[in-house]
Amino acid sequence: MNLIGAQLGLVEPGIVEISLPYRADLTQQNGYLHAGVVTTIADSACGYAAFTLMPEGSGVLSVEFKVNLLRPAQGESFIARAEVIKGGRTLSVVRADVFAVDKNQERTLVATMQGTMMCLIQNRERQRPDQ
Amino acid sequence: MNLIGAQLGLVEPGIVEISLPYRADLTQQNGYLHAGVVTTIADSACGYAAFTLMPEGSGVLSVEFKVNLLRPAQGESFIARAEVIKGGRTLSVVRADVFAVDKNQERTLVATMQGTMMCLIQNRERQRPDQ
Amino acid sequence: MNLIGAQLGLVEPGIVEISLPYRADLTQQNGYLHAGVVTTIADSACGYAAFTLMPEGSGVLSVEFKVNLLRPAQGESFIARAEVIKGGRTLSVVRADVFAVDKNQERTLVATMQGTMMCLIQNRERQRPDQ
Amino acid sequence: MNLIGAQLGLVEPGIVEISLPYRADLTQQNGYLHAGVVTTIADSACGYAAFTLMPEGSGVLSVEFKVNLLRPAQGESFIARAEVIKGGRTLSVVRADVFAVDKNQERTLVATMQGTMMCLIQNRERQRPDQ
Repeated sequence: MNLIGAQLGLVEPGIVEISLPYRADLTQQNGYLHAGVVTTIADSACGYAAFTLMPEGSGVLSVEFKVNLLRPAQGESFIARAEVIKGGRTLSVVRADVFAVDKNQERTLVATMQGTMMCLIQNRERQRPDQ
Repeated sequence: MNLIGAQLGLVEPGIVEISLPYRADLTQQNGYLHAGVVTTIADSACGYAAFTLMPEGSGVLSVEFKVNLLRPAQGESFIARAEVIKGGRTLSVVRADVFAVDKNQERTLVATMQGTMMCLIQNRERQRPDQ
Repeated sequence: MNLIGAQLGLVEPGIVEISLPYRADLTQQNGYLHAGVVTTIADSACGYAAFTLMPEGSGVLSVEFKVNLLRPAQGESFIARAEVIKGGRTLSVVRADVFAVDKNQERTLVATMQGTMMCLIQNRERQRPDQ
Repeated sequence: MNLIGAQLGLVEPGIVEISLPYRADLTQQNGYLHAGVVTTIADSACGYAAFTLMPEGSGVLSVEFKVNLLRPAQGESFIARAEVIKGGRTLSVVRADVFAVDKNQERTLVATMQGTMMCLIQNRERQRPDQ
């Protein structure tokens, strides 16, 4: 997150936004944000959103996610907004939309993610490699 | 790809490997490679693998992909190996496995991706925003 | 759709609902609707929703979809509600929620799908096997 | 499974095949097997494959799956072959390929699934709605 310059924005129970200013070294030849970067901010937003609903001392882990890339990701900045669809003791299902933001602060949806996040309780963590 | 230090390895028709040396700034607090980075090299490998089967002058675009994160991504380096499952004139379905490689060059599977890549013919490219 | 007794409900541009009355032979040992049936009505709703935005004479085909199963699917009936997130000339991205409906007509979200549908123009149909 | 006439074939630790004879009422207008039916046998095969590696007294539940539909599903019969990619105490990741089988017993790959199955220990089952 530091590497790409992403920042945590809105944080509410079950909802999190992460913003990312445009940077040339995050784009492909065509000037569009790389799909991997789009995915990185969406996944991070999903993880944090799930985390807001977890008990104190928990850790969070991405189990799986799926991304549909809808439009070229070009803009002044980008926002990933994640919302928990279904919280759970162990697994949470989260959805994230990624928007490109232009000079006039207008948002265009460029990608959407649906994923599963896992809650790691501190003293269960050792079991993780075996899930 | 440059930003994270990934390099193209094996390239055969329909099969591509991308390797990534360990770097501390690509990891999370726990020392594991960030899921976004794992996804980035898997997606890039999928794109290149599909590209090897496309006609000259084509461009390639990720339509969608899904990743299952299987184990903590810790290693000396990482390899994403992608293979085209079904090539097509417009759409190709590609699978990628991401391995962590230890000091002894042993590979452990840490993630697996299944995705769809799209062929952009040069003179169709302008139509892209509308797919 | 006939086989399982599903019926088309609401149809608006880009939005379609399909309903399915409970039937014992569609359930598993535990009385919950089989995941395959949940998926079938979600996929059909996605296909129809995309179809409502396609030009006359088109056919529609599922390219891929992903389903998260959120809660046991038990109810008097079930409704799959699909909405097009991004229409396109060739590919449309569609999301569907599947609800269990109880005696009091209250809906509980039991599954959610994110998928890609493809438009087949009549005279392109022959090319389909090669996409 | 009974409803559509599917049958369990090969069963080995971590590998299961399910077969389905052609039946007109499982197809769409064009004579191809409905995507929902393709998914149903793939999901069932994934569940059984994960189940073969679980401790006695377990139940199995689909958490999520993703399907890419590769070619029209036309054949004399169909086989879904699932293999566990990564078993785990709670979650297992499974891949399934669905083949159309012609008169000469030749198999053509028509769909591929990647999904997550969950192990339900008998005395944990009551907790399920909360996962």
